[in-house]
Amino acid sequence: MSTDLTEALDLDAIRDRVDTVLADFLRRPPSTVPSQRGCGDELAQALRDFVLAPGKRIRALLCVLGWQAAGGGDGEEALWRTAASLEIFHAFALIHDDIIDSSQTRRGRPSAHRAFAARHRARPDADVFGIHAAILLGDLALTCSDALMHTAGLTTRQRDTVLPLIDTMRGEVLLGQHLDLMATGGPTDDVEHAMAIARLKTAKYTVERPLHLGAALAGADRELFDLCTAYALPLGEAFQLRDDLLGVFGDPALTGKPVLDDLRSGKATVLMALALRHATPHQRRTLEAHIGRPDLDAEGAARVRHILQRTGARDMVEGMISERYEAALRALDSTMLSPQTLHALRHIATRAVVRTA
Amino acid sequence: MSTDLTEALDLDAIRDRVDTVLADFLRRPPSTVPSQRGCGDELAQALRDFVLAPGKRIRALLCVLGWQAAGGGDGEEALWRTAASLEIFHAFALIHDDIIDSSQTRRGRPSAHRAFAARHRARPDADVFGIHAAILLGDLALTCSDALMHTAGLTTRQRDTVLPLIDTMRGEVLLGQHLDLMATGGPTDDVEHAMAIARLKTAKYTVERPLHLGAALAGADRELFDLCTAYALPLGEAFQLRDDLLGVFGDPALTGKPVLDDLRSGKATVLMALALRHATPHQRRTLEAHIGRPDLDAEGAARVRHILQRTGARDMVEGMISERYEAALRALDSTMLSPQTLHALRHIATRAVVRTA
Repeated sequence: MSTDLTEALDLDAIRDRVDTVLADFLRRPPSTVPSQRGCGDELAQALRDFVLAPGKRIRALLCVLGWQAAGGGDGEEALWRTAASLEIFHAFALIHDDIIDSSQTRRGRPSAHRAFAARHRARPDADVFGIHAAILLGDLALTCSDALMHTAGLTTRQRDTVLPLIDTMRGEVLLGQHLDLMATGGPTDDVEHAMAIARLKTAKYTVERPLHLGAALAGADRELFDLCTAYALPLGEAFQLRDDLLGVFGDPALTGKPVLDDLRSGKATVLMALALRHATPHQRRTLEAHIGRPDLDAEGAARVRHILQRTGARDMVEGMISERYEAALRALDSTMLSPQTLHALRHIATRAVVRTA
Repeated sequence: MSTDLTEALDLDAIRDRVDTVLADFLRRPPSTVPSQRGCGDELAQALRDFVLAPGKRIRALLCVLGWQAAGGGDGEEALWRTAASLEIFHAFALIHDDIIDSSQTRRGRPSAHRAFAARHRARPDADVFGIHAAILLGDLALTCSDALMHTAGLTTRQRDTVLPLIDTMRGEVLLGQHLDLMATGGPTDDVEHAMAIARLKTAKYTVERPLHLGAALAGADRELFDLCTAYALPLGEAFQLRDDLLGVFGDPALTGKPVLDDLRSGKATVLMALALRHATPHQRRTLEAHIGRPDLDAEGAARVRHILQRTGARDMVEGMISERYEAALRALDSTMLSPQTLHALRHIATRAVVRTA
């Protein structure tokens, strides 16, 4: 284990190092065509603004920890570029997701399409223009995440395992987004379907695949991949369940996200599915009358929250989070991991489920 | 030169072979997650429908010809997968472009977002849903074009040259799309800017980079890359100029595209910039009053067409097409190319500029 790696256990230091790779790479993304410099700078600048805004960098951290769990090795440069690439890919996912969810803000700042609309507010079509520019911005982010991987200095063996794994991860998250989109607007009591979406969109994408990618870079064996999965899937589900609770009961000042968004869009969450499943006919009618209404007001939201509590749905979700948190920690009871890695993975698990933002 | 290659000079045979690779690959794209089969099939099916619809496959053809120009070599499988990957990437570009241009049709069929809206017309938000699903469909196409490249069986040398070249191509076309988006709606007489957009969006993306990619796979030297560029840029510009003329003067029954779209959206074409530059003040006012109006009717379009002819803009564009066509053919006067490759490249040049669809 190299000195660098020991230092890397400082999670803030990992984050800083990833941010440095991102800033260096985005100084000159592939869309910077020499003859067009000036003209084309808005897109590149918007990408820098979005990617370099402060974030949790959870996927990059997990990628580094997966590498570490597998014993690290040579080629740290490839690791850092892969970790950074995951964060640019995530920017892509967020930019397009915010368009699809009509989210006005992201991390307390205007979402990408709203930022474009604001910058071009003199245009008569500023709102639509903003959406269209953000579609392209997301596309550029996806392209940049590739370009970073393609110049990461991977060995042939790494390329052959890591690039297909990235493609699988992308396919999974896109399928999750699509199922989410289909299910939004008409919430049902199908708890299993809501959980399947959470598994694809969050558990696999946010936790399992980043760990796998890091582990694959270090040449991990099947046993370690399985251990990562056993930790990642329950933890990722717990992470999403916590998000669902914060989306309805959270403090917008802390989450940076308007608290009515999830209810207004009618997101198909496990929380909502449980409430519908356990609602009295009267409660059910109230939920159906309020969920998915773009004009839902604070009073309507309060009624929904009341039902989420009275049906026991909120408590059930808290219970599911605890169960999954414990299952994730149990998965770490293995002699395969160093005490340092173990400590970091436990720390991340706790932060993922016990949080206010 | 292999037997396969000789056969490959039959452009229809190239197209068929690319279509076979596409159909095989898309049977199981990366978003096909075993546990979600059924649910997630709509996205995969939509991708198949879009990609496998009959098309010119011009980028795939040029990729094969670039490879051929460089003398071909072993590893034809990698060539075919790269050529097919370009077509999936192009599907991505078209799907998102049609959203941005609000195009209702593509190749005479509903555009991807309109097809989704039609399939989900029972939803109250069918139109917006269609756009959001098509954003994800485009993202999946981009992901699939990567996945195909990442499993193309490239040698290390090929990967190190070809993957970064693909990333550059993507950056160029996205920058072109962005500049196009910025310029649309308020047409100007800036002919050079309109041409710069055409160069990025079409000349480099449609002609130069596909040739370069094929040439790079076969290990071409700088001299051949330069020859490809000398042929591709004027030809690609001519191709776009022809497209601009067809967008205003074409027969919708042949182009598969409503003839008012370009005028209604106010596309910043060289044709329009030339007309504005050479218009009388009265003609200019008429153009400015009509271009970019979503409600432009057939009578208004007829007035615009009349001005495009009276200012000489239409003839000037025809002249520019001829000049560029000849420059492209002159670039082929080289001993580097086999008679077969020469013949195919000349044939493609002619078809690109002399066409009605």
